[in-house]
Parts: sequence; C-alpha cells; structure tokens
Amino acid sequence: MAEVHSPVLGSSHDSPIQIRVVTPITTTSFRDAQALGELAHAGLLLSHTYIDYGPASIESAFEEMLAGPGAVRKIVDAAADGMDAVVIDCFGDPGLDAARELVRIPVVGAGQASLHVAAMLGFRFSIVTTLQRVFHLNAHQVERYGLSSRLASFRAVDEAVLDLDRDRTGLIQKLSDQAMAAVRQDGAHVIVFGCTGMSDVAAGVRAELLARGIPVPVVEPLAAAVRLAEAFVRLGLTHSAITYPPPPSKDIVGFEFPDRG
Amino acid sequence: MAEVHSPVLGSSHDSPIQIRVVTPITTTSFRDAQALGELAHAGLLLSHTYIDYGPASIESAFEEMLAGPGAVRKIVDAAADGMDAVVIDCFGDPGLDAARELVRIPVVGAGQASLHVAAMLGFRFSIVTTLQRVFHLNAHQVERYGLSSRLASFRAVDEAVLDLDRDRTGLIQKLSDQAMAAVRQDGAHVIVFGCTGMSDVAAGVRAELLARGIPVPVVEPLAAAVRLAEAFVRLGLTHSAITYPPPPSKDIVGFEFPDRG
Amino acid sequence: MAEVHSPVLGSSHDSPIQIRVVTPITTTSFRDAQALGELAHAGLLLSHTYIDYGPASIESAFEEMLAGPGAVRKIVDAAADGMDAVVIDCFGDPGLDAARELVRIPVVGAGQASLHVAAMLGFRFSIVTTLQRVFHLNAHQVERYGLSSRLASFRAVDEAVLDLDRDRTGLIQKLSDQAMAAVRQDGAHVIVFGCTGMSDVAAGVRAELLARGIPVPVVEPLAAAVRLAEAFVRLGLTHSAITYPPPPSKDIVGFEFPDRG
Amino acid sequence: MAEVHSPVLGSSHDSPIQIRVVTPITTTSFRDAQALGELAHAGLLLSHTYIDYGPASIESAFEEMLAGPGAVRKIVDAAADGMDAVVIDCFGDPGLDAARELVRIPVVGAGQASLHVAAMLGFRFSIVTTLQRVFHLNAHQVERYGLSSRLASFRAVDEAVLDLDRDRTGLIQKLSDQAMAAVRQDGAHVIVFGCTGMSDVAAGVRAELLARGIPVPVVEPLAAAVRLAEAFVRLGLTHSAITYPPPPSKDIVGFEFPDRG
Amino acid sequence: MAEVHSPVLGSSHDSPIQIRVVTPITTTSFRDAQALGELAHAGLLLSHTYIDYGPASIESAFEEMLAGPGAVRKIVDAAADGMDAVVIDCFGDPGLDAARELVRIPVVGAGQASLHVAAMLGFRFSIVTTLQRVFHLNAHQVERYGLSSRLASFRAVDEAVLDLDRDRTGLIQKLSDQAMAAVRQDGAHVIVFGCTGMSDVAAGVRAELLARGIPVPVVEPLAAAVRLAEAFVRLGLTHSAITYPPPPSKDIVGFEFPDRG
Amino acid sequence: MAEVHSPVLGSSHDSPIQIRVVTPITTTSFRDAQALGELAHAGLLLSHTYIDYGPASIESAFEEMLAGPGAVRKIVDAAADGMDAVVIDCFGDPGLDAARELVRIPVVGAGQASLHVAAMLGFRFSIVTTLQRVFHLNAHQVERYGLSSRLASFRAVDEAVLDLDRDRTGLIQKLSDQAMAAVRQDGAHVIVFGCTGMSDVAAGVRAELLARGIPVPVVEPLAAAVRLAEAFVRLGLTHSAITYPPPPSKDIVGFEFPDRG
Repeated sequence: MAEVHSPVLGSSHDSPIQIRVVTPITTTSFRDAQALGELAHAGLLLSHTYIDYGPASIESAFEEMLAGPGAVRKIVDAAADGMDAVVIDCFGDPGLDAARELVRIPVVGAGQASLHVAAMLGFRFSIVTTLQRVFHLNAHQVERYGLSSRLASFRAVDEAVLDLDRDRTGLIQKLSDQAMAAVRQDGAHVIVFGCTGMSDVAAGVRAELLARGIPVPVVEPLAAAVRLAEAFVRLGLTHSAITYPPPPSKDIVGFEFPDRG
Repeated sequence: MAEVHSPVLGSSHDSPIQIRVVTPITTTSFRDAQALGELAHAGLLLSHTYIDYGPASIESAFEEMLAGPGAVRKIVDAAADGMDAVVIDCFGDPGLDAARELVRIPVVGAGQASLHVAAMLGFRFSIVTTLQRVFHLNAHQVERYGLSSRLASFRAVDEAVLDLDRDRTGLIQKLSDQAMAAVRQDGAHVIVFGCTGMSDVAAGVRAELLARGIPVPVVEPLAAAVRLAEAFVRLGLTHSAITYPPPPSKDIVGFEFPDRG
Repeated sequence: MAEVHSPVLGSSHDSPIQIRVVTPITTTSFRDAQALGELAHAGLLLSHTYIDYGPASIESAFEEMLAGPGAVRKIVDAAADGMDAVVIDCFGDPGLDAARELVRIPVVGAGQASLHVAAMLGFRFSIVTTLQRVFHLNAHQVERYGLSSRLASFRAVDEAVLDLDRDRTGLIQKLSDQAMAAVRQDGAHVIVFGCTGMSDVAAGVRAELLARGIPVPVVEPLAAAVRLAEAFVRLGLTHSAITYPPPPSKDIVGFEFPDRG
Repeated sequence: MAEVHSPVLGSSHDSPIQIRVVTPITTTSFRDAQALGELAHAGLLLSHTYIDYGPASIESAFEEMLAGPGAVRKIVDAAADGMDAVVIDCFGDPGLDAARELVRIPVVGAGQASLHVAAMLGFRFSIVTTLQRVFHLNAHQVERYGLSSRLASFRAVDEAVLDLDRDRTGLIQKLSDQAMAAVRQDGAHVIVFGCTGMSDVAAGVRAELLARGIPVPVVEPLAAAVRLAEAFVRLGLTHSAITYPPPPSKDIVGFEFPDRG
Repeated sequence: MAEVHSPVLGSSHDSPIQIRVVTPITTTSFRDAQALGELAHAGLLLSHTYIDYGPASIESAFEEMLAGPGAVRKIVDAAADGMDAVVIDCFGDPGLDAARELVRIPVVGAGQASLHVAAMLGFRFSIVTTLQRVFHLNAHQVERYGLSSRLASFRAVDEAVLDLDRDRTGLIQKLSDQAMAAVRQDGAHVIVFGCTGMSDVAAGVRAELLARGIPVPVVEPLAAAVRLAEAFVRLGLTHSAITYPPPPSKDIVGFEFPDRG
Repeated sequence: MAEVHSPVLGSSHDSPIQIRVVTPITTTSFRDAQALGELAHAGLLLSHTYIDYGPASIESAFEEMLAGPGAVRKIVDAAADGMDAVVIDCFGDPGLDAARELVRIPVVGAGQASLHVAAMLGFRFSIVTTLQRVFHLNAHQVERYGLSSRLASFRAVDEAVLDLDRDRTGLIQKLSDQAMAAVRQDGAHVIVFGCTGMSDVAAGVRAELLARGIPVPVVEPLAAAVRLAEAFVRLGLTHSAITYPPPPSKDIVGFEFPDRG
C-alpha cells in the first residue's frame, strides 16, 4: 500500500499571538529582556512586566501570598490591553487561580505548565530548585495538579533566588550535580527546574548533563509556560468558567482592581 | 512605579515546523485532509499517513494491540523523512511507548496530550467517547498518566468509531447531551473527547454547549496533540532517553523495521 | 485483679489560655460576640478582631487571596500581644501557611481543624457549604491536608456568606436537607460545615437531624479550631519550624509588616 | 478602621471534665501516676485503669488482638461510671472501633489522635517507635486514618516496650538519634512517638533535639489523645452512630460484657 | 513454524493436600458439611471446625474482635495437627494477622483471597453483602489489601448473617438485584460476596444474573480462599516471616495458647 | 465444646485440568520442558508453545508490543484445542487484555498473578528483574493492577533475558544479593521475580536467602500463574465479559485470526 502524504498549510491565527509575561516580584533586574526575546518568533509577540507591589523575590509562603495581588492586577491589565494570553513567571504560580476568575484569556503558570510537560516526557521527574525550604510548597503544587505519582524527588542547589545569577558557571555545575543525583539516586527520568530564575542556564545544564552521559530532558518552566500559552491560544481554549467563575461583586478594602470595589 | 513593557521578537525555528500525523487504522476515508489543514499555519507544515497493516478502527484492546506495529513503522518512517515530531491520531495512544524507544523526535499521543491539557484547564474533566466498552481502557490511560484524581467520569454516545460521521448534527446533539450530563451530574468542569474521530464536530459541540449555558472547555485530542508536538519542538524537548532507551538489537520474526532484524 | 483508679489533679497552665480569633473579612457585623463568648470557659479567654484590608466576604480564590495579607498582619499582632494561639475564622484558611512562617505560637485554621476532627469521628465526611463554586477550593484543602480518602461529597445550600443570617430557621432546614442527602445518597457518616458563618445554627442543625433520625456528628469549624488551638497550647506544641521557617529578610513593596520591610 | 477586641468569658462545662485513661495491658507498673497527673488541670479530672485480661505488653498483631476485649470491657465500665470520655493508652488503638460501637461517649485512641495532631503541625511526619516489627502495623493505621500522604518514614530504637524505662538517659539519646535521622535523611518535619511508653521522656527528647539544632514538634501520643478527648467533650461531639452502631443482640461465648450475653 | 506441544505430567505433592477450614463463630449450624465437601477433590482433603469462644455471628467490629482469639487458637491447633494450610471462613478475616505470627503454614482469609481474585478478573468489583453497617469495615479491608482503586461500590441485601438461609430463593433474588444494580448503576464488572454465609447460593446467583443478561463473575469468598490456600501449598509459599514474626514470649492473662503463657 | 472435624472428599473436576503455557517469544530454547513438567501433577496436564512471530526476547515496550499478536493467536488456538485455561509466560503480560476479549477460558498473565500472590503474602514486595530499563514498564503494571501501595522497590541483576541461563550459580548469587538489598534497604517483606526466565533458580535463591538469614517468600511468576489458572478453573470463574467483550467484527489487514477478518 502506497503511503499518502498530504502536506497542508493552514491560515489560522496568522497575525502574531501576543503573550504578556508577568514576573510577580519587584526586583526589576531579575528578567533579562534579551533572553526573553529568544522565546518569541515570527508568530509570537512577547511583552513583559513586573508587579508594582509585593516581595523582592519569592522563597516562602509569606512572599508567595504577597505576590498574588500585584500579579493579578497585572494580569487584569494584560487582558484589558488585548493580550491573547498571560504567563506567570514564577514556579509557585502566585495568583493563578485568582487571576483566572477575573479574566477569560488563558493564564498559564510556570509551575503548572512545566510539571505537566515533565510528566509527558518520561516516567518520573525530579524538581531541582533553589532552597530546601520550598520543597513542601512545590510538593503541594504537584499534589494539586494531580501529578504526585510521577514525582521522583526534590533537590536544591542551596542558592537564594536573587543570588542565582552571581556565578553562572558555578550554577550550571550545581544544577547538573543535583540533576545527576536525582537521576542516579532517586530514579528521575526527567528534570524540572523549580524556579524561573534559572532560565538562562537551562541550555548549559543540558549540555553539561549530556557531557556527563545523562541524557534527560531538562524542563525550563518559563519556556514551558510560554509554549503552552501559545498552544492554548491556537487551540481556542481557555480555563473553565465553572472552575473559575467571576467573583461576586462586593466591597474590597485596600486593593484596587478595575471594575472591582 | 512605571510599568515596563518590552515587546520582543525572536527568530527561533523560523523555517516551518514539520509534523507527521499518523492515523493508526486502515480505513483511509477516516481523516478529512481539509480539516487537518486547519491545524496548520504559517509556521507549521502537516503531513498525514494511515498505517499499512492493522484494524479498520479501534474499539477494543485487541484492535489497539494490532494497531501498534503499523503505527510504530510509520513513526520510524517519519523520523527518517526528517519530520520534527509525530502525532498519533488515536485517543488510545497505540504504539506510543514503543515508538518513543525507536525515534528521538517527539512522539505525542492524542490521549496523553488531551488529558494533560484538560487537567490544566479546570478542576475535573470527563471523557466523552464512543462506546461504554472502552471506558476501562481510557481509565487505565488516565491512571498511567497519573491524572486519576482529576477525572470526574466517563460518558459514551453509543456510536461506533466508523459511524461517527454518518449524522453530524445528531452527533453534535449526542455529544452535547453527554457533556451536559457530565457537568450537571458528575461534576465535570472540562470535557475531553475520548476519540479523534470527533474532531470535526468539536466547534459544533462548543457552540451547542454555550447555547445551553454550559461554558466548559471542550478538548479535541488531535488538535491538542498537534499543538503540544509543536510546543515540544519549539522547546527543544523530547521524551527521556532513560524511560525510552533503544531496544537491544535482536531477532524479530514476522515484522520488518528499518535497521531492526 | 482489682481495678486501680487514680484520680489526679494537675496544675499545668492554670492561668487562662488566651486565644485570638481573626475573622479575615472586613464586614464587621459578621461575627456575633455573644456566640463567640460561648466558646470561652474558666480556663480560656477569647479575643476577636476583623482585618483592616481585604474583601467583605470570601467566596472565590480571588477573595481568599485578598484576605491573606490582612489576616497575617492581625496574626502577627496577636503574637505581639502575647496571645497563646490564634484561630483563623474562615473555612478556607486564608493566610495560614504564611502566618505560621512569621509567628511561633500555634495558628489554627478553621478548615484544617474541622476536617481532621471530622476524619476522627467516623468513616467518611461530607462538607456542607454555601455555594457550589467553592467545592473545588475545599477539595484542594482536603487533598492538601491528606484526607481525600475520607471525603464522601460536597453539598451546598446555595446561599452567599453574607446572606446566611437572613433567615435562620430557613438556613437550619436547608443545611439539614443537604446533610440528610449527604448521608442518604453520598454515604456520609459525619457532616462538616464548609463555612464559619454557620456557627450559630450548628446546634439547630444537630437537633433537626436527630429529629429526622439521622444521628451524625455535625462539626462546626470555628469551634473545632478554638478547641484544637487550646489543645495545642496545653500540649506545648506548635507548627514545625522546618515546614514554616521565617522568610528571609528582604524588600517588600506595598505591605507593612512589623520587623519586615 | 479601628480594631475591635472583644475579650469574652464563657461558662460551658465549668464542672471539671472527667476522662478515664485505659492502659490495655496487664503490666501494672507501666504507667506512672505522677506523670499522668501532669496531664490533668483545674478543668480536667483523670482516672486510670489497666485491663484484667490480655498481654503484658503489645508488640505484635497477636498481642494487639488479645488486648482488645479487655480494653473494651474497661471502656464500657468507664461509660457506666459517668466518665465524659475515654482514652486508649496504646499507639495501636486496640479495641477502638469495637468500643465505639458499645458506648456513646468519645473514645480516643492514642495512635489516631497523635497522627492527626502530627499531620496538622507540619508537612510530613515520621513515627519513631520501639521495634521494626511494628512498622507495618503502624503503616496500616496511617493508611486507615487516611494520612499516608503525610508519612515520611518509620524509625525504631530497638527496645522492647517493657525495657523502655530501664535507661531513661539512654532512651532519650536513642529517640533523639532516630528523630534526627528521620529529619535529616527521610524528610520528616514532625516526629510522633509510636508508643505511649515513651511519654515521660518526651520533654527530654524535645530538649535534646533543640540542643542539636533540630526544631521539630515531638508529638507524645497519650498527651495528644487526652487533649483531643477533652476537645471532643467541650465540642459536644462524639463518634458517628452510623459508623459505629450498637452490635445486634446475640449470643457470645467466653466473654462477659454488661448487657451483652 | 510448527507448533510444539509438550504435554507433561508432574508428581509434586501427590499425597492429597490437607486444609482446615475454621469458621470463626459459635453457631454450629452455620456451615453445611455437604457444601463444604464440594470444594474437596482427589488431591485435596478438607476438615472443618468452629471456634470455642466468640460470637454467634459477625456483623460488627465488636464481634470481629471477639472472634479473633478463638480463631487463632483453632489455627494453632490446625498447624499442630499437621495441616498444610488453614482458611478463615469469614469475609472479615478475623485473626488473620495474629495467626500468621503464630504458625508458618499458609493462613488464608476469605476476604483477602476473594478481593484479590475479583481484582484479577475485571476492571472494578462491587462487594454485595448482608448489611450496610459493615460497608466501612469492608472498605478498610479493601484499603488495607491495597485494592481501593479497583472498588466500584458496596451493596447490601439487608439480611443478618444468621437469617441468610431462611429463604434461599428469596436470597438469590435479592443478591441478584443488588449485583445487577452494582453493574448497571455503579460500574461494577465483577461481583464479590461480602460474607461466606452466601456460599451455597453462589451458583444460583450466577445463573440468575446470566438469565438477566448480566455476564459478570461472581466470586464466592470461601471457595476463593480454599483455592488460593491450595495454590500456596503447591507453590511452596507461605506468608513472610518479616511481616509476621513470632510474638515475643511474655505473660498473657485470660487466654491460653499452646506454648504461650 | 468438642471440636468437630469433618474430613470430606469431593469429586469436582476429577478429569485432569488442561492448561496451555504460551511463551510469547520466538527463542525456542528458552523454556525447559523438564522444569515445566514439575509444575504439573496428577490433576493437572500442561502443554506448551512458543509464538510464531514476534521478538527473540522481551526487554522493551517495542518488543512487548511485537509479542502481543503472536501470543493472542496462540491463546485463541489453545481455546480451540479445548484447553481449560492459558498462562502467558512473561512477566510483562503481553496480549493479556486482547486475548481475554477473544476467548472465554481464563487467561492468566505471569505478572498479574505473581503480583497479587506477593501482595497476599506480606506487607510490601520488591520486584527483582533483569535490567533497570524495564522498571517503569513493571511500575505501570503494578499501578494498573492497583497494587502500588504494596510496592517497596525495583532491583535489577543487570543481565539480559537470554543471558540468564549462562551462569546459574552466578545468577543465584546476583538475585540473592538484590533480594537482600531490597529487604535490608528498601523495606521489602516479599520478593517477586520480574521475569519468568528465572524460574529454574527460584529454589536456589530461596535456599541462599535462608542461608543468609533472610526468610522472605520468593514468588516465581510462571508457577504463580499456573497455580492461579488452576484455581480459576476449579472455581468455575473466568474474566468478566463486561471488561472484556468480544471485539466488533471488522476488517483487519496483515494479521490472521480464526473467525476474524
């Protein structure tokens, strides 16, 4: 039987997709615009913002809580600006559920996106992150997204978020060491970074792991979230209005949200 | 604090991505080329093939087993043809694990992709499929992908795969009835079709559900798989070589695979 | 063998225990001081406060997020005031994890406490709450506390939080109807209210259910939390400093916390 | 907005609560009355009894089975004596379910109570117990109470129950060593003793762990059970009559129970 | 390629296997010797005994507890008598763990055996039993044996154990009605009886279900246990000495066990 | 009360049971007829066959997929030959679900049977197999059979299937080493071989482990499957026709099945 190839070319969404990346901290030197630009392409325009109020970085439940309102505010703005989707640039997904109640464009969290991508690429994944103290926060995310049976372990490089970019070469070594330990000792088949502050060393870690003979996928959460947001836009899909109905109209003291008290 | 927008434009992968869709059955009237074309766009070329040996359609474990070897053969061919990724056009993901052992380009199953997409869009999803007899096969997929805690229920329209296109209007009504029951009675917040043979009525079902006041995402598995394959290519990620190492070289009787006995 | 009874009288903590109840909303008519007083006793002093900024009531992820910072601020104040423990007066436990990072006195959430109490009293429990829209938020709590295998179902009376006190007799009937349905149709052996706004009808619902021949425990979350806070104080136990280490010192914009930027 | 503090004093249950502690073994030197007295206070009277028939101590399923009937007999007596609640003084909770079918006052097992307390205080708990041989018995308890997802590990000091009090200082060291290993190697954030025979060294272990820089809660099961029993009495709550209905009246050979053949 | 058939005849265990069935109640009219005889065959000798002390029948946790010691005593006797294996003739498996600690011949519980058999025969099973009050006891068994994910539902015929043989025809109808409901409404693919008192109507229920067009396996627990005991003997396998080590030697008051105080 | 022993002798199925063992590979030196003969006895006739097309051995998802169709063909033949049951002689259970859809005699997989046997014999089991690369395939089986909560670990001897019989003494040492590590380090109480190619060293491994003081059951999957097949035949039970209904009649290209296109 002859094989039938039917090369086809479509025209859906031929104006570029527009995605806003919201980095939910107040340290405005955190995200390198250059690096972010590498995620864009002919069909995808990216814009970027930090939040106006919240913590300098996120390494605790306290800071995650404080990051939420500012992030949601920026997501509401992004929808008003006509964006096609929003990405929350933090593995902890601060404000994700709340924002989805307020806007109908897809809101994608770096944690949720990368965990699902990791689950699709191999048997078990390990999360390699900054500090041991966030392991249980990440564990609750994994549980909440229903992926606990795919989790191999947590590993930390013992560096605070804002120190990650001080020694890039050293960071690549530390991340590779922990990833190697996750594979060799914990049975990981896939590695996910547990922090979006490691995005610009992902390629370096992949190269280093290959050099060490450890051929595992390394999932970088920000990139994963941007790609899934793009996919949702092209699929014409957004989060369920039954899970995320708009909050009832009522008085709110101390926070300002457009069209909300 | 002023908001900083940094619109950025990248250039990664600016030659179009090429994805091969493998429909793992021998009924060559099943997949409408026109409809498939709507999934392509300026940055994405799609090609398509059926399998050479296997069942006319898949509604049993027996047929799923028979579909596997032919599908894997076509996936090996796709890699040899220089494709960037392959999509298996069947919710049951026949041949997915085996194919991933043979090729290093991303192989995406319609079932796996759509179940993860559904899990990301809302609290619980229901699978609306053809026949009750496949419920347990789908349940094993959900379990295997680690998503059981997100599953609300299974529903069937009681139509065989090859009968799905006989009455499109009727099919839209039946699917909408079952989706509505899944939402109202089973607590579903998201609907996934359990068969790629329903791809061309997805838009109709979404419209009908909206008309009935049921604003749930309806995930069509073939489209979900194409979009995720595209995302994996842009991410530079493929399945783990630890989960899917190449099979050892050994004698095989009765099946021919390039570079395999 | 003769039975040995050794009546013993101790003296531990003979000055009254002091617990602050934090109601994490801004509607200052919500909590009846009289009713709260009934939870105190010779060995237990209760004080009460609302929050200064946040939502009028909590029925969404958005409002829960907004309630957190104000609740944590009041919990920090309670610790500074020399309280022995704090109770968060909302089933959603807003701010619980964050607050535990900031103070070393026990912080008890009404949701967490009542779910564990319910789990100890019978085989499976159902949560009877205000609105269907919070089912999934409560489901995530149950999952997070590790109690999903004990959950029978969710039921709602279809009344917003701030409407609960409009018709007390009607509310008792509605809650009893849903509790009865949970027992008869869903296999519940224990009922938990999913909102602390129903505290003053708990006795009425218990009486009504008994009158209907349904002898199930009805767990009222605020009372459960106060009693567990008292128990933790007498046990000399508080939350783990490994799960809840103090957040690192760093800049925070837009929120003021004593001893925190 | 001004903060409203409403100090309130109640009068519920102002006659002291009476709790009977049933130690379900026949070794009458096991429980120190002095130590038990420290659990009482102005509002709480404790009485104590051993069982008349059963094993000298409990370290096997066989002994646990033999402890049940004697324990239930003493619990029935306690209810007849007008006690407000009963505590079973053994981590294995022998007779708990059976006793709850016979009496309507709260019956609290040391195992169930301490496991739920541990689950509320931190992310994951480890059980530090006497002998490796009981690990699986404790695992079944954790599973039955629905808390498996919160369990980090089991650790044993390798001392039989009745040898625990031979060398108190040594025991504190051994328990601290195992607790430290549970935290450092197994990821425990909370420690629960797996035997009530360690109650009088709990304070010593907490002090030793703090001295070693390991700030974890150490849950002592007997104290946890007494405090929860007290909480249930003040809450007016007891176990569900649907889970624990009275056994049908029928002939029983070889055991005597009041009002039962 | 020619197919090679190698009919082979072995000689392992050619003296008949001897299995003792222990019915752990004191109602000596319960088990019909004739019916029991039908489980024997040329290679299998069966003997039978009731217990000397315990309840008339088992329908509560209390009675299950009281059945244990008498059952274990008879199992110890069976081992002393040279039996090859023992079967506990009650779905609740009273004394199973304790007995396994005392003897090294296989001890098989009717509940454990039938639940595993049911799990092997189809996707999900339902337990059809006597009374609703034992549902949660059975649920704990299913959980303990690790089979919860295979459980569809519980159903009861609302007849006490000792009334089951009053109206055999009626019982067949009632069991068939509940089995049918389990299949049609709860998604069961296999039925397990939740009581060994229904053994002599199993064939009748199978016939009735077939007549009604419901082709599901009906697993009778006593027969399942006898067959698995036989299988274990032929396999030369018995329970693990690590899970079930002999209890330490110590004083026991009020119970007599050979070679145990 | 006098003990009543009723030795009884039955006559069910007194013509020998006939079981066909299907070894789903094409290496016809794999299965030793002598060894197989030891599984037969006076009441059990065994016959044996390899498959006509498929792989030389199975160590990957690819080979497992290729083994399926040939195995199913031989199982259909076995039913046509009047066999009472069929055993699939491979731990991976290739073709199990498909075959059950085509025949109504019991089809028992070595993996499914041995995993359930292991689960019945002790608290947790470890799978000791050939190569690390199959761990995740076995993990999916354990998950699918619902037994994940009973799994301690995977261990491999690092020998390919077809090399297992090269050095029997060495293999016994390697298997014993891994089993010992599983018990000592991973908490296993029962060992299951993860490959039927180890059947003739099972006795040697048991002896070696006993000599090392490790008294754990060692479950050999082929023997377990033969014994369970025998048990199902005597029980008159086979797999559910609801889980495994016959596939609809339809065109199949490239495979020949009796009575199927």
